[in-house]
Amino acid sequence: MAERILTRLFVEAALAGGTTVDLSPEHAHFLRSVLRAAPGAKLALFNGRDGEWLAELDAIGKKQASVMILEKRRDQTPSPALELAFAPVKKTPMDFLIQKSVELGVSALHPVLTERTQGDRINAGRLRAQTIEAAEQCERLDIPELHEASKLEAFLDGWPDTKPLFVCAEAGDATPLTEALMAQKSTDPAAGGQGLMTGPEGGFSSQELVNLSERPFVTLVGLGPRILRAETAALAALTLWQAIVGDLGLRPPHR
Amino acid sequence: MAERILTRLFVEAALAGGTTVDLSPEHAHFLRSVLRAAPGAKLALFNGRDGEWLAELDAIGKKQASVMILEKRRDQTPSPALELAFAPVKKTPMDFLIQKSVELGVSALHPVLTERTQGDRINAGRLRAQTIEAAEQCERLDIPELHEASKLEAFLDGWPDTKPLFVCAEAGDATPLTEALMAQKSTDPAAGGQGLMTGPEGGFSSQELVNLSERPFVTLVGLGPRILRAETAALAALTLWQAIVGDLGLRPPHR
Repeated sequence: MAERILTRLFVEAALAGGTTVDLSPEHAHFLRSVLRAAPGAKLALFNGRDGEWLAELDAIGKKQASVMILEKRRDQTPSPALELAFAPVKKTPMDFLIQKSVELGVSALHPVLTERTQGDRINAGRLRAQTIEAAEQCERLDIPELHEASKLEAFLDGWPDTKPLFVCAEAGDATPLTEALMAQKSTDPAAGGQGLMTGPEGGFSSQELVNLSERPFVTLVGLGPRILRAETAALAALTLWQAIVGDLGLRPPHR
Repeated sequence: MAERILTRLFVEAALAGGTTVDLSPEHAHFLRSVLRAAPGAKLALFNGRDGEWLAELDAIGKKQASVMILEKRRDQTPSPALELAFAPVKKTPMDFLIQKSVELGVSALHPVLTERTQGDRINAGRLRAQTIEAAEQCERLDIPELHEASKLEAFLDGWPDTKPLFVCAEAGDATPLTEALMAQKSTDPAAGGQGLMTGPEGGFSSQELVNLSERPFVTLVGLGPRILRAETAALAALTLWQAIVGDLGLRPPHR
């Protein structure tokens, strides 16, 4: 893989050798105005289904670009099934939460509205664009699924009884997350996927904690002696899950 | 601990029951204009040496406030000795890196300038203020030590040969960090402290990687198959260290 790749782009189109694909106006603008790319430049494309492909820029204008698909660089591999349910936080930490969750390999994102959640308007288009940009940068082959925002009770009602959900709770009687993950791992190899959940600034209310603990699939977990902000808790929990259950022991491709 | 605490503040002064302490103009402004605090309001104070103390606001003006120290709430406990050396990144991700590192319990921060480090001007006053604010929020009893920025070679020359330094390296032949930490842990209970190091955007140069790998205290480590941004790598590494070597199995105080 000595070929120098200009950049990695996510596209919706099917990818197969010898075909031509039109890029979005945004990608055309990015290639032309930011990267100053000219025809002949090499790109990598992925669509979440067909693996990663080497492509060559064929034609480029202000708002359009087309590329010729050359050869496959990597086969599609599934990401570990790791869902994150999170109470939305303010703009800057939420941007961070989304970007970092994608880098840490989350497979699905569920915005969940709790009693103390502030700012319950979720801009789904913006979140989707952020997940795509983060996936392009971190060499993932897929984009996490982005679910619609739902209220806590509705979210819990829709969660499968057999899928473990580890809820980061500052208060009460919580097991350290590492312990909970190890215990779960020995009985269930995560075949059906697992979920992590973090609360809003200010945490879950005591009634919410009672409701959560009554669900058979919920384990209330802790993340140590310091009080973590919501977005920090999410990233720490994702990291530990990937280390104990997921793929953090693997190496990057092409390296 | 039923007493409702208004906020937690870091002060430089010695803390002992029955004494009076003057707060900084910034804290006075914060209490008066942001929290609308009146005399009699309860605060918690810590100074990194004497534990955490309950205090009562005694007098407050526009730029000055004094508090009466009442009783000790928590004894001073040492943080695990976990140092982070990091190549500075851009403003927003660096703000995030500093804040999250403090939440995740880092005991010392070393800005390190590498070949590909962009923006080598470190605003030490700003970083210090960020570490204090993060410590106030996360219920730590100490502020991480903030070292002056140094070039990579000088930093490595000053690092003790007997203190393990785990360097997150995207390229080359790296051990997964979890494995490296477990192996180290079995031979050395981290009594003298350990360090983690992350590179700049774009990573270490190949010459830097060679230089790093020649140091007896360095282990090059990996963080999984996705390419993490510098600040994400730092937070993931700190989380794993706290889980495997540090205190992530403990619970918050007062809970």
